Amino acid sequence: MTLHELIQSLKTDGGKIVMLVSDGIGGLPMAPGGPTELEAAKTPNLDALATQGVLGMSTPILPGITPGSGPGHLGLFGYDPLEFQIGRGVLEAAGIAFPVGPNDVCIRCNFCTVDENGLITDRRAGRIPTEESSEVVKLLRAVKIPGVEIFVEPVKEHRFVVVFRGEGLGGNVADTDPQKTGLAPLDPVAKDEASKKTAEVAKEFYRQAREILKGQPKANCLTMRGFANKPSLPSYKELYGLNAAAIAVYPMYKGLASLVGMDLVGSPKSLEEEVEVLKENWDKYDFFFVHFKYTDSRGEDGDFDAKVKMIEELDKVVPAIAALKPACLVVTGDHSTPAKMASHSFHPVPTMIVSDLARTDSCNAYNETEASRGGLGHFQAIHIMPMAMAHAGRLEKFGA
Amino acid sequence: MTLHELIQSLKTDGGKIVMLVSDGIGGLPMAPGGPTELEAAKTPNLDALATQGVLGMSTPILPGITPGSGPGHLGLFGYDPLEFQIGRGVLEAAGIAFPVGPNDVCIRCNFCTVDENGLITDRRAGRIPTEESSEVVKLLRAVKIPGVEIFVEPVKEHRFVVVFRGEGLGGNVADTDPQKTGLAPLDPVAKDEASKKTAEVAKEFYRQAREILKGQPKANCLTMRGFANKPSLPSYKELYGLNAAAIAVYPMYKGLASLVGMDLVGSPKSLEEEVEVLKENWDKYDFFFVHFKYTDSRGEDGDFDAKVKMIEELDKVVPAIAALKPACLVVTGDHSTPAKMASHSFHPVPTMIVSDLARTDSCNAYNETEASRGGLGHFQAIHIMPMAMAHAGRLEKFGA
Repeated sequence: MTLHELIQSLKTDGGKIVMLVSDGIGGLPMAPGGPTELEAAKTPNLDALATQGVLGMSTPILPGITPGSGPGHLGLFGYDPLEFQIGRGVLEAAGIAFPVGPNDVCIRCNFCTVDENGLITDRRAGRIPTEESSEVVKLLRAVKIPGVEIFVEPVKEHRFVVVFRGEGLGGNVADTDPQKTGLAPLDPVAKDEASKKTAEVAKEFYRQAREILKGQPKANCLTMRGFANKPSLPSYKELYGLNAAAIAVYPMYKGLASLVGMDLVGSPKSLEEEVEVLKENWDKYDFFFVHFKYTDSRGEDGDFDAKVKMIEELDKVVPAIAALKPACLVVTGDHSTPAKMASHSFHPVPTMIVSDLARTDSCNAYNETEASRGGLGHFQAIHIMPMAMAHAGRLEKFGA
Repeated sequence: MTLHELIQSLKTDGGKIVMLVSDGIGGLPMAPGGPTELEAAKTPNLDALATQGVLGMSTPILPGITPGSGPGHLGLFGYDPLEFQIGRGVLEAAGIAFPVGPNDVCIRCNFCTVDENGLITDRRAGRIPTEESSEVVKLLRAVKIPGVEIFVEPVKEHRFVVVFRGEGLGGNVADTDPQKTGLAPLDPVAKDEASKKTAEVAKEFYRQAREILKGQPKANCLTMRGFANKPSLPSYKELYGLNAAAIAVYPMYKGLASLVGMDLVGSPKSLEEEVEVLKENWDKYDFFFVHFKYTDSRGEDGDFDAKVKMIEELDKVVPAIAALKPACLVVTGDHSTPAKMASHSFHPVPTMIVSDLARTDSCNAYNETEASRGGLGHFQAIHIMPMAMAHAGRLEKFGA
């Protein structure tokens, strides 16, 4: 019996769960003996919750493995990131919160510049500004192919997403980007039987697109990479019996949440607005994923002090969330992003569960040192959801 | 290589092991900041062992999962409860310490009352008292079916167990309980080829039983549920090379121990008598499972103070067990049963190993707070047996 089969067989009704994800929250001291970002930050509200809840250390994937945002969040949502892999095209679509469906093939596309012989002179179309490229993307919506619905969506600069929607469209098609200049884009070649139709559709899309782009000064051609179908993830409803809402500012996290069937609620522009959206939707859902991006952003900048400030911003909204009295509040991150490394890292993530059913430990602050000796021990991120369900009274006993 | 293959390939002779299982030992504070049952109890003897041994936290199944007694004990015995599942009929038979064999099909039966048209008017035969139903059960022992040995054993009130013993009896037969009154019992229908003979035997058993029960005022019919074969568990002897004895007051735990091939020794009626049985059999076995029920019972009652008292009772017998100088003494539980929840729970279980080979940690009491920061860390219950074997010098080196 797999973990998912087990959870599905035990799920029952219970209290509400809030999962507050502070992206890249875990950190490192800048110098030996110094504090981490969490330890340097003044976080009276998180620390009060730590006194009352139980802490532990979450390993996003496996020890030593640094996760990207996709696998990091899949793990938090309870899907083994080594089993459920999100193709690059789907991740790009998720990144603009495109609602990927089961019959979709998503493709990461680049505008490029070709000469009169069709040979690429610039693989990124002169890094065409987003304002310009968005307009060119709109032109491509004129492409029509019988039996296939086509979506063309801007991303940033030369990057855009194409989605083919229809029956029998496999996602196993080779990239058309030859990876260097002086060559023509390659033909889209199916790598299995199930993807032959996709390759034909891609070829026809390319043919029509070339016509449309003919007059463009920079973006007069395109390459296609990362063809991918939606991974077949059981939804939050199927797996946990949860009506789940995702509250996020950044499109990528909305996209990831929509892959597991969460509703995207509100259009918050800040953490304060996210909390407002949470309050407004409190009665409508059982589970809320609340995502805070800037701890990761400032970590990626390598700016220790700025990350500390972001943690203190996070701390300020905690009382408003706790005041809603979720049966289980989880505070965690999808991975660590130490300012010292200016990147995602492999370090485990301080994780806290606040609930009437939490077996309180002796931790009195939410940080790495406390969490590493907390009552939850060290565990893989995929176990956070079952623990949250248990603390919200949402799992029945296994066996008699 | 599976864990079982590994252990089987490394097992060797060594010292004696005692596994003292205090059912539902783990607990919770009744109010934030308060002690758990173990922390409230005065346990000078357990605490002395904690100072000398090494502690850790055992997760019975997986984080967040609350085990029933069956899976809880399978985990303690070293059998993955998600791999080895005990069917309901077998669990019921285990619950009355019926020695289930490899050719047995066990069935949970209910007496019911039917009207003159054979339609059920009471699914529990008026909750017929055990004294009465035991007598009716004896009448059913007159059923004879060629080629099949039949056991009919009382359980409690309307419940009893039927076991068919013979070749080719699969356990995959549908329940005959229609789950509501006004309907007749269903036919036992085989759900696979291997269970066709079982279904035929069940039909004939039912036919003869109906004749026998005809004159009964309440228990004039029966329904059959939870048909199950014995799970094919390697025995303690095969897996660990251990001659194992089980010492328990309650039938359920004797039954579970007998499923893994332990000998049931003595007929103790109390913890003190269990220790006497342990002493008497000390020279005859390598491994002793000693089960103490009442920590769970008082936890299930929701009676914090009474559970504390039971823990103090347990503490009193500890010196007599330690005086036998087992090479490895394990103190643990099959799950937590916090009085606060008045039920089994998902919380991990404080676990202690006392042995000359234990790497002593800084824990100086046997309780949740200490165990959660103990030297054994947090681990799944299936690893307790290999650790016990190792601490008793019973596992060779793996590889050269």
